[in-house]
Amino acid sequence: MLPRRSVESLIALDINPDADESLHRQVYAGIRDAILSGRLTPGSLLPSTRTLSHDLALSRNTIMTAYELLASEGYTESLRGSATRVSSVLPDELLCAEPVPSAATSATPPPTLSDLATRMTSVGHEHRLGQPVPFQPGVPDLDRFPFHLWARLIARFWRKPPTELLIGGDPAGYLPLRRAVADYLKAVRALDCDAGQVIITTGAQQALALAVRAVLNPGDESWVENPGYSGFSRALASIGARPVRIPVDAQGLSVDAGRDRAPQARAAMVTPSHHYPLGITMSLARRLALLDWANEQNAWIIEDDYDSEFRYGERPLSALQGLDRGGRVVYVGTLSKITMPALRIGYLVVPPRLVDPILALRRSIEDFPSIALQPALAAFIEEGHFAGHVRRMRQMYAERREVMNASIERHLGGCFRETPLDAGLHVCVRFADPLLIRMNDETARRRAGDRGIACASLSAFCTPPLADHGLVLGYAGYTPEAIERAAEELGRALVP
Amino acid sequence: MLPRRSVESLIALDINPDADESLHRQVYAGIRDAILSGRLTPGSLLPSTRTLSHDLALSRNTIMTAYELLASEGYTESLRGSATRVSSVLPDELLCAEPVPSAATSATPPPTLSDLATRMTSVGHEHRLGQPVPFQPGVPDLDRFPFHLWARLIARFWRKPPTELLIGGDPAGYLPLRRAVADYLKAVRALDCDAGQVIITTGAQQALALAVRAVLNPGDESWVENPGYSGFSRALASIGARPVRIPVDAQGLSVDAGRDRAPQARAAMVTPSHHYPLGITMSLARRLALLDWANEQNAWIIEDDYDSEFRYGERPLSALQGLDRGGRVVYVGTLSKITMPALRIGYLVVPPRLVDPILALRRSIEDFPSIALQPALAAFIEEGHFAGHVRRMRQMYAERREVMNASIERHLGGCFRETPLDAGLHVCVRFADPLLIRMNDETARRRAGDRGIACASLSAFCTPPLADHGLVLGYAGYTPEAIERAAEELGRALVP
Repeated sequence: MLPRRSVESLIALDINPDADESLHRQVYAGIRDAILSGRLTPGSLLPSTRTLSHDLALSRNTIMTAYELLASEGYTESLRGSATRVSSVLPDELLCAEPVPSAATSATPPPTLSDLATRMTSVGHEHRLGQPVPFQPGVPDLDRFPFHLWARLIARFWRKPPTELLIGGDPAGYLPLRRAVADYLKAVRALDCDAGQVIITTGAQQALALAVRAVLNPGDESWVENPGYSGFSRALASIGARPVRIPVDAQGLSVDAGRDRAPQARAAMVTPSHHYPLGITMSLARRLALLDWANEQNAWIIEDDYDSEFRYGERPLSALQGLDRGGRVVYVGTLSKITMPALRIGYLVVPPRLVDPILALRRSIEDFPSIALQPALAAFIEEGHFAGHVRRMRQMYAERREVMNASIERHLGGCFRETPLDAGLHVCVRFADPLLIRMNDETARRRAGDRGIACASLSAFCTPPLADHGLVLGYAGYTPEAIERAAEELGRALVP
Repeated sequence: MLPRRSVESLIALDINPDADESLHRQVYAGIRDAILSGRLTPGSLLPSTRTLSHDLALSRNTIMTAYELLASEGYTESLRGSATRVSSVLPDELLCAEPVPSAATSATPPPTLSDLATRMTSVGHEHRLGQPVPFQPGVPDLDRFPFHLWARLIARFWRKPPTELLIGGDPAGYLPLRRAVADYLKAVRALDCDAGQVIITTGAQQALALAVRAVLNPGDESWVENPGYSGFSRALASIGARPVRIPVDAQGLSVDAGRDRAPQARAAMVTPSHHYPLGITMSLARRLALLDWANEQNAWIIEDDYDSEFRYGERPLSALQGLDRGGRVVYVGTLSKITMPALRIGYLVVPPRLVDPILALRRSIEDFPSIALQPALAAFIEEGHFAGHVRRMRQMYAERREVMNASIERHLGGCFRETPLDAGLHVCVRFADPLLIRMNDETARRRAGDRGIACASLSAFCTPPLADHGLVLGYAGYTPEAIERAAEELGRALVP
């Protein structure tokens, strides 16, 4: 056994009071490294806390905390009195070995990332936190959400949950919720499905990710809309499939252009209810033409029916899923906008033969969906609160849409090309020439931002050579007064 | 306009009372298809509900429901009186076109699945639903979980949630929960991390899926333990990376064998706290050897520290993450077993430079984790309930482990090779020769199943040529009486 002073010199503690790491962790790490590297051998006595505290000019409390940590991990053991020594039960192999060129002191450069990670990291994305401001898109109104009822439904489940629901779970989701979703979609969206075809997901993006994994190989082409939703491209990029941008006209995605550019694509990803972000409804003729192409080519269709609850004016057309008889439409929906985005509950409705493959794919990325809110949400739908909430929201959003249009007319007259199209929770306005001469939409977005107005530029949804200029203005989540004020402010930013 | 009778013949409704589809949906679909295919032109009068009801021998209610559905979707419109005609506002393109070879009647074979989906579907998996029975592994005890407190914490958040937490979310998870997890891991597992390195996931499998996507390319090799956890292979298979099976000895994964079989692997996936399912703790020497190999090869280590809370007897060794100074350990953990599996909350602790890439990868499979339970869980940890629960569970599980060992001794003496190893919530027993002569472990598992005893066979965790025979027996979730009874029953199944 070494005398105490030489032990101390072996420890060679390099304490930096300015480091981020707390002092006791530095002491702990220094001693641990000395043990691991063999500089401190089993049975060696450590200096007393008093001595080390004095030598290092650190408080005795700091040293004691470090010693406790070492002991709690088995590196050291306490002797009678207050002495501490290096544990003798450390594995023989370690202690006989020559001093370890320990990982702790290694200077090897860190290993490289996967190609996928490198590629995905370069795909820009923003996430906003904090209180939303007009006209940030994608924000539903939450003031009218019945939180008290909601909290009661959640607590009702969690006070006495059945054990079998807590241990495992159906990888497709909680059956009563799947039933409620199927009933809702059959009644409201004319889907042709039963609960067995419904797979609960953590939102639309997970639904898309599972769908593309199930039907596309790396390198496969898929039609996507241009302008279009970046989530489609993101899902495709994550498996190395190739988006082919297809222009959108007044009837939705141009099937003729698609047949020109990628006649043999394996899939088409579309937002037929209302195009994202333009708001155009895909005409029935176009829907049938798309299904015909898919039939001819034996291709898949991934239909994102986002915000289909929030249409005002004419009646919604049937979902593609309801028109398909070839078992080739994968339907994606979400409850995030009707309830709230942070719930993260969406769903897939898939042809029956796709159920097992998709569940197998899910199992590679997660075991099964959390039970957290599924029972409460199922009750919320079954007991009619959901339908009531949608009805109230639809009416309120329709009023806000009127306010929005009137405010645009009042404060931004002449800036935009036509009446804004209706697209769920936002409007998309395209720049008229007089405005476009003065600025592009990115400039407009920045100027609006300087005045505290959030919005998205349409060109950000476009892939070159397409460069459509406009603004995507969310209105649903803001009061009429806030909309009016923000439109006035936006007018100051854009009108000379 | 056609006379009514000819309209009816155009509809050519093919109603099958034995079909799964309800009668009104069949009527609806038949008429809709006739409209879409052009057999019924805009403005055509439909037969009255009375007439059609009579002709088809269906109730008038059925016909009226079908008509309402058609009208609600805009295919038809009501005239004065009760007459109904095909809507005139259907898109011109549709109506001028020649009869559509409609998707509705298409007989094209359905499109093919992706290679990945085909491959993953062939990876067998089972999921058990229903009340767990001894000795089904992976089942924590839930009777002592403080559900009332838990429901109160959840309801406390949901009654008045701050709007900004409901609209968007941090893709890494709710910051207070990340802080609570970081503090817990630093204190209990000697991790070297801060909250910024913690990424909340939907459990260990999602954490593994993100980790392999971040660090491995398709075709890359990764060491995995043999026997070992199938979730590792599943995660690797989902990106086309290749598991190389490395044997496990009394000190854990054999680094020498790994150096022999795949010296240049890009990663090693290990369960050092206690090997799954054997329960072996990787020795400190082996941990350092593994880190040395990783440093030399500039490889990654993915450390799954499952059930590390539930060790009895000697103190746990530091996690690899805490020993690593090369920024090459990705640490995976879960709160599922300490709380309950169906919560689906786990986490990654990653080197700082991996945070952004992993968040970008997450964004391709989901936007951000649900807020559902994160605030309640953060409060549960911060307010000390979590530590108390772990302490109570650890003590109770230690008692049950004693009962388990005594019951095995009493009813299955001589069946197994050595004292069962301790592995969190289960024991793993290996067959001694006398038992092995009589049956292999699959037979044993089936015989146990015939007597109502659930368990897993060890050979199911092995990749040939390794074929270790044993049973994985979960005990933590069952009362001492249930354990004793089930061991007795298992004895009847295995002892002649």
